[in-house]
Amino acid sequence: MTQLNQAKNNIITPLMKRIAKQEGVVYTQILNGLKMGRIVIPCNKKHVIKNPCGIGEGLRTKVNANIGTSTDKPSIKDELKKLEIAVKYKTDTVMDLSVGWDLRKARKEILARSPVPVGTVPIYEVTVNAQRKRNDFLRFDIEDILDTLQTQAEDGVDFFTIHCGVTRNSLKNLNNNKRILDIVSRGGAIIAAWMSRYKRENPFYEYFDRILDIASYYDITLSLGDGLRPGSILDATDNAQLSELKILGELSKEAKRRNVQVMIEGPGHVPLQQIRTNILLEKRICNHAPFYVLGPLVTDIACGYDHISASIGAAVAASFGADFLCFVTASEHLRHPSVKDVREGVIASRIAAHAADIAKDIKSAIDWDRKMSLARKRRDWKEQIRLAIDPDKARFYRESSKPLDSSVCTMCGKYCSIKVSEECLGN
Amino acid sequence: MTQLNQAKNNIITPLMKRIAKQEGVVYTQILNGLKMGRIVIPCNKKHVIKNPCGIGEGLRTKVNANIGTSTDKPSIKDELKKLEIAVKYKTDTVMDLSVGWDLRKARKEILARSPVPVGTVPIYEVTVNAQRKRNDFLRFDIEDILDTLQTQAEDGVDFFTIHCGVTRNSLKNLNNNKRILDIVSRGGAIIAAWMSRYKRENPFYEYFDRILDIASYYDITLSLGDGLRPGSILDATDNAQLSELKILGELSKEAKRRNVQVMIEGPGHVPLQQIRTNILLEKRICNHAPFYVLGPLVTDIACGYDHISASIGAAVAASFGADFLCFVTASEHLRHPSVKDVREGVIASRIAAHAADIAKDIKSAIDWDRKMSLARKRRDWKEQIRLAIDPDKARFYRESSKPLDSSVCTMCGKYCSIKVSEECLGN
Repeated sequence: MTQLNQAKNNIITPLMKRIAKQEGVVYTQILNGLKMGRIVIPCNKKHVIKNPCGIGEGLRTKVNANIGTSTDKPSIKDELKKLEIAVKYKTDTVMDLSVGWDLRKARKEILARSPVPVGTVPIYEVTVNAQRKRNDFLRFDIEDILDTLQTQAEDGVDFFTIHCGVTRNSLKNLNNNKRILDIVSRGGAIIAAWMSRYKRENPFYEYFDRILDIASYYDITLSLGDGLRPGSILDATDNAQLSELKILGELSKEAKRRNVQVMIEGPGHVPLQQIRTNILLEKRICNHAPFYVLGPLVTDIACGYDHISASIGAAVAASFGADFLCFVTASEHLRHPSVKDVREGVIASRIAAHAADIAKDIKSAIDWDRKMSLARKRRDWKEQIRLAIDPDKARFYRESSKPLDSSVCTMCGKYCSIKVSEECLGN
Repeated sequence: MTQLNQAKNNIITPLMKRIAKQEGVVYTQILNGLKMGRIVIPCNKKHVIKNPCGIGEGLRTKVNANIGTSTDKPSIKDELKKLEIAVKYKTDTVMDLSVGWDLRKARKEILARSPVPVGTVPIYEVTVNAQRKRNDFLRFDIEDILDTLQTQAEDGVDFFTIHCGVTRNSLKNLNNNKRILDIVSRGGAIIAAWMSRYKRENPFYEYFDRILDIASYYDITLSLGDGLRPGSILDATDNAQLSELKILGELSKEAKRRNVQVMIEGPGHVPLQQIRTNILLEKRICNHAPFYVLGPLVTDIACGYDHISASIGAAVAASFGADFLCFVTASEHLRHPSVKDVREGVIASRIAAHAADIAKDIKSAIDWDRKMSLARKRRDWKEQIRLAIDPDKARFYRESSKPLDSSVCTMCGKYCSIKVSEECLGN
């Protein structure tokens, strides 16, 4: 029985209790959230997760970090280092997006080492296998897809991104649309190319039922991918995106009926003034299923700093109800990310998530800021560093520039406002 | 005659014409904006500004970078390097906040080299002079203040931050308030300490008229500083902050009456859900005078990454009407910033400003994103780098990770979604 199945039967599982405790909410909030499909807990029954998490309404906003080899960077070593760093800097989940090296071996290594839930995009492995076995990355069929899903399920993957909304009908909407950038989802582009070559319906859509069989057996959370997400802010919130969202809403209902936990993926590139509408639409059309957004980036011109562009969009999105933030690194649009990019990407997303949690009045979020402000008031530098979102960076900055008077910092030195206030005003 | 004076007389100056041209608006929009006090153009008549700018309603959101020596880092050399970098990465203005070395020499060097308007916080020089001459940083009087203003005016400073809202009454509100962090403005703390020692009213408030004499003679824009801005998100939007804002609103009216251009400074540390209210209050209480915000930071726990926390707050603030963004660097709360911090701080603020300009539908803002998206569609890497907000960083990233196929990048390699779309779908 999946967590959703048990929730429907009013069974409070140890995992629900654990999530309730770590969120500081009552058990029934988790139970009801699961039952209504507003909360998911990714937890493949084959995977022992040291730090599980709940994602959805009323819970702390969660952050995902993407890792994985590329065809150009096929070494697993760096990816394991990225996993370690992402976890050290407190990502809530990771996704293994590998398309280079031995994919199964990479996945197993990541699953074995990751203390947090692990997600994948199974179409990648299907594609890479087709390329390797048949020298043609589009020569695969539904059985190849189901075999891959079964293997990954057995390996212990906790959530799958499934691009099931790229249907013949939604592609028609895309073609009538005159977008600048048609398809920027890697999985979406592969599926669309396959559909175009074979003149067939999307197999993830056509055989969604068989995918649900696997997901419900292992209790894998499905993350319904937005293969037609906008790749330019000028393409945002268009008919292609919305027609896909409608399909995802319908499929999410079917998944819930079959006791499969489900969340919805969202853009991408969205200008600031359209973010709220995007969140409200997802919540309405997909019956408040948890919303997993990629950024969104609020401008297209910030490559080299897309973690900043994304953290602006993510903070606003989460404040309006997005539940789960996929990090974006400074390397986005330019290269395969470095270990440093992953660290800073996780931190940038966590800043956005935390700022939104304060805005949403998530229990205890602001306590952290209170403690930091009190430490700042006391000019207790050790405590400020300990409380910083990245203590290593805060320590490095402080130690790189030692003040003459250790009770202040080198910015204001003698004229530190807090010291002046204390000494001259008794504050 | 100041620009404001001329606008009141319906005289369109060459400077107004130039600003209208660079903003892509009609002359009368600048004239009327000045007349109503909704636009300012910092332009001391003693300073030749190569790249002047207008700040306010309907114009592109502007960015300021702070530079200047500290008591712990008194060398001017690094500060001139920061000026060069800030200008290279397209800050709209700089502020010289020096409190170390020879302050006048530093200021003159900066004024001579800066192609953009230069602002200062004159109380710093007053304080440093008192410390040097009388070994007591609080031993100064109104004549010392006016002398300093006169000297700085003569040197060519284009805008002054004047902490004139820290009055005996607003300090009473502060003391009744039980803030975590009472005063975090360096200028605000010095003034409050002076008022407390001498049991006197704030000289910037008491002698505001004499300050207006100097400002109107040189056409220096006054930036009415928020000495009581919150330094913790838990202190935001409290009575102390609001009572100071009310005084600034009154003084801004007086300044306008006297033909002195004026803008208002704002917080600081503000949680995401309170930003809109802060902007609306300033616009209402200060008759739509341009709003110059410091960040705002949306959380207190991000030291080491405060440029990101600030860019979230700044994007939201500017989208609701803030006109001028003071950058915050990654060093904030930890140390005197490095040259690299200044570069990344300027870029982070510019991303926020640009995202907001798109949201506000500022003329031509989105054209930049359109061009970038078109270059991305063509996989024209040279053009993407040229269009990037920091071409040097974008180039460095791309060159640090060379793809096997030069038409893609190392992230997706062979499976680049844009390439797959083009080759398999003809998009």
